[in-house]
Amino acid sequence: MNGKEAGYTQHISAQFNRELEELKNRLLTMGGLVERQLALAVDALVRGDTGVAQGILDEDGSVDAMEMAIDEQCARILARRQPAASDLRLVIAIGKLDTELARIGDEAVEIARQVLRLSGSGAAAAALGRRVCDMLRAALDALARLDPVQALTVLREQEVAERECGRSQRELVAVMHRDAQQIDAGLCVIWALQALARVSARARGIAEYVIYLALGRDVRHLAASEAAACVPDAPAGLS
Amino acid sequence: MNGKEAGYTQHISAQFNRELEELKNRLLTMGGLVERQLALAVDALVRGDTGVAQGILDEDGSVDAMEMAIDEQCARILARRQPAASDLRLVIAIGKLDTELARIGDEAVEIARQVLRLSGSGAAAAALGRRVCDMLRAALDALARLDPVQALTVLREQEVAERECGRSQRELVAVMHRDAQQIDAGLCVIWALQALARVSARARGIAEYVIYLALGRDVRHLAASEAAACVPDAPAGLS
Repeated sequence: MNGKEAGYTQHISAQFNRELEELKNRLLTMGGLVERQLALAVDALVRGDTGVAQGILDEDGSVDAMEMAIDEQCARILARRQPAASDLRLVIAIGKLDTELARIGDEAVEIARQVLRLSGSGAAAAALGRRVCDMLRAALDALARLDPVQALTVLREQEVAERECGRSQRELVAVMHRDAQQIDAGLCVIWALQALARVSARARGIAEYVIYLALGRDVRHLAASEAAACVPDAPAGLS
Repeated sequence: MNGKEAGYTQHISAQFNRELEELKNRLLTMGGLVERQLALAVDALVRGDTGVAQGILDEDGSVDAMEMAIDEQCARILARRQPAASDLRLVIAIGKLDTELARIGDEAVEIARQVLRLSGSGAAAAALGRRVCDMLRAALDALARLDPVQALTVLREQEVAERECGRSQRELVAVMHRDAQQIDAGLCVIWALQALARVSARARGIAEYVIYLALGRDVRHLAASEAAACVPDAPAGLS
């Protein structure tokens, strides 16, 4: 290769890296927006704040638009740059992760809808709400830093969240049994709890992708304890 | 291009077409499996058949394995064949659709779980169950034939299904109010109804992809009536 060709190749590759970097940043920006939406929805739920809930419903659509834009950019990069190996893996993952994020945004909207129907405080969802917000933040953090060890903590947390969701639901059903007047409010909170459980499953999905991107290991459909065996630096306490 | 090169290029291209065809067939096979799972789950729900429900839980995992295999094949084709234009669009779509199908399989499992908790018949979900099974079949059919007009009917049906789900839920809640003994069973059926509503949203997602693949138009986040404007041969009754 002569000097001119090498310069050209370098130029192309630098531009490609910039494009990949920009794509990743857009995904993380979208993640930040979804994280904020979820935190607002949980806060509105716990405090019974219908004003905030209505604001979330009004903002619905911006996350969807970001998903579409990121999908288009992925397709454009695949067509023009024909990336290979880890770059290809990254582009494919981003094209899946933007959908996960958009669905998490849908769940935040679902929670906001329940706040409007509830007309009261859903304090029973406070603990799970906080836990799931923390999980989502940890999953996005693990994604930003491509940190499989942090991702693994999200897998474990999801299993805890699932149990907590079941427990809170059972308590609410018991209340409904004792007092039929509580049925409607109880159902709204149960639906919000289930939306939170689905967010936690999606945060886990993001964490699973981080492990895949960082280590090339597909740990979907494994228990956290099994996944730990695929992550070399996992502290023993995680497995 | 000389004769030898032309022959080589033709050979590569024929092999690539075979690979794409095989990839599409795998997705449709997965779709058939998920469709069968859902039909079984709905049947088990309506008849209160715990044996069939347990069978669905036991079979869980086969759909997930198919998703992983299809994802890998997509990545391999993108890396080796560097497809362009409509081929690229198809591979990207298959990589998203397999996830949709896997999540529909998850919902079938969720319905089966409710059948086991219910210990009785969930006849109240019969109408929605049939409707959603038909929708999924229509969506997969539209995918197999890349038929945007049929896909459009799925979008419209999803909006009907959503309303029907809301109506059935309200009826069940009314029953729970009248008779607290019905709370537990009512909740199981409501959760099954909501799982069906999510399947219907995913069937719509598949149909939206069919329109995208066939016409290059992204109709996600549009109402069926708005999407109809993007499909040239749509009968007027659809819009």
